[in-house]
Amino acid sequence: MERIEQHASFGGRQEVWQHTSSTLGCTMKLGVYLPPAALQGEPCPVVYWLSGLTCTEQNFITKAGAQQYAAQWGLILVAPDTSPRGEGVANDPAYDLGQGAGFYLNATQAPWAAHFRMEDYVVQELPALVEAHFPTTEKRGICGHSMGGHGALTLALRHPGRYASVSAFAPIVAPSQVPWGQKAFAAYLGDDRAAWAAHDAVALIASAAQRLPLLIDQGDADEFLAGQLQPQRLQAACAAAGHPLTLRLQPGYDHSYYFIASFIGEHLAHHAVALR
Amino acid sequence: MERIEQHASFGGRQEVWQHTSSTLGCTMKLGVYLPPAALQGEPCPVVYWLSGLTCTEQNFITKAGAQQYAAQWGLILVAPDTSPRGEGVANDPAYDLGQGAGFYLNATQAPWAAHFRMEDYVVQELPALVEAHFPTTEKRGICGHSMGGHGALTLALRHPGRYASVSAFAPIVAPSQVPWGQKAFAAYLGDDRAAWAAHDAVALIASAAQRLPLLIDQGDADEFLAGQLQPQRLQAACAAAGHPLTLRLQPGYDHSYYFIASFIGEHLAHHAVALR
Repeated sequence: MERIEQHASFGGRQEVWQHTSSTLGCTMKLGVYLPPAALQGEPCPVVYWLSGLTCTEQNFITKAGAQQYAAQWGLILVAPDTSPRGEGVANDPAYDLGQGAGFYLNATQAPWAAHFRMEDYVVQELPALVEAHFPTTEKRGICGHSMGGHGALTLALRHPGRYASVSAFAPIVAPSQVPWGQKAFAAYLGDDRAAWAAHDAVALIASAAQRLPLLIDQGDADEFLAGQLQPQRLQAACAAAGHPLTLRLQPGYDHSYYFIASFIGEHLAHHAVALR
Repeated sequence: MERIEQHASFGGRQEVWQHTSSTLGCTMKLGVYLPPAALQGEPCPVVYWLSGLTCTEQNFITKAGAQQYAAQWGLILVAPDTSPRGEGVANDPAYDLGQGAGFYLNATQAPWAAHFRMEDYVVQELPALVEAHFPTTEKRGICGHSMGGHGALTLALRHPGRYASVSAFAPIVAPSQVPWGQKAFAAYLGDDRAAWAAHDAVALIASAAQRLPLLIDQGDADEFLAGQLQPQRLQAACAAAGHPLTLRLQPGYDHSYYFIASFIGEHLAHHAVALR
């Protein structure tokens, strides 16, 4: 782990670290916000933030305005990149496949399987690294936006006990049923629809081993709402399964970081209470 | 005026507008944040934000996290670009001269004099435009960062009565005496040092017609502190002239938007109280 950026921020410190990932077989960057409590050596819970398509570790740390709330609540925020990166890593010219579009799963198909193992990276290697380097408690929360909202929901559902809190902004709740997810799953997982269902929040809800309450904000002016996001599918699945869901349709909000910034404070409050 | 972006943000709306500037002779973009009160038609005071070298109208609106405070206080925030722009506008390959580096003055020297009239643009054309299009009161505040901090201080000092509040982050307080300012002033204003003094906050303080209190935050880990910013020069000038100055040296903070985001709430509170 090498620190490549550090900036004082709300009494704490926003850092960017770089490391060689054994899971992904490439160099990865991550944003780490250390609240004032962590700088004083006090163990703090960690909230993992998973970004959306095209993002790097920079988008969330520069645009979401999350640091002020993390400082208040004493939360460490960790924001990884959205895929493996580099010249030796498979890619696609489209914005929604390959680098910048890892979809938080382990690919099984060529040419992706060699490096695209974002599920193992986010669930195993990254927390081990973070917990070895920073003063953390054993409590973890997970949160994300769009493709990263899909990541937060599915990783929490697939790894019961690993996360004590989960929330999402404008998540892709049913990737098996919308174009973004269908394209990525066909490429990364192949044609077997059963493999797809294992990475689809709506499909996973029925058999969830843990009834972790879901907090979701969705803008009603989001340009991807009808075509790619379809939160009503998750609402129906949660209702059928009795899974606790708070789904808030926010009037006038779009898919941008202006939306995330407006509600990230309430999401971090949700995590902070659960992670105490 | 044509609106080219709009995003719901903290109950208000972050917009980006484009217009043909008669002062600058080119197309200009500006960020406009309308707080909830303005969306309801209530007249709100306007705080103008002047950005630093290399910035466009985007940096402040995406990175400073100012909208939440503007929403609370009922302030309209206007963030113009930092220079005239376009293929027909003079430029220089360096980051600190030409496009992105207008220094908030009217150039008198070729090839800059044709378009580089940022003082007239910011002080006259822009407020006329804003006050014609949005529900404003007649009160204006001005605030900025680095080159834009120089702009905020000098424009407030040069136009007594035009602004009711002023503040700055890491401003270039004495451009005549530091490399950034000397390079820009030599290019835009020529060799006449008297012309330079008219755009130098430290030089202007002694003869200020209005004792507008100055609020300045400066990070003590700012990489440009000793070479380009030198706030002690302003402190000495204000002490000598009896000009009210609150200069806060913020330990550990650098020159970035992480610094601005950490204290923009206190700056907007300062403006809001003065603009009531």
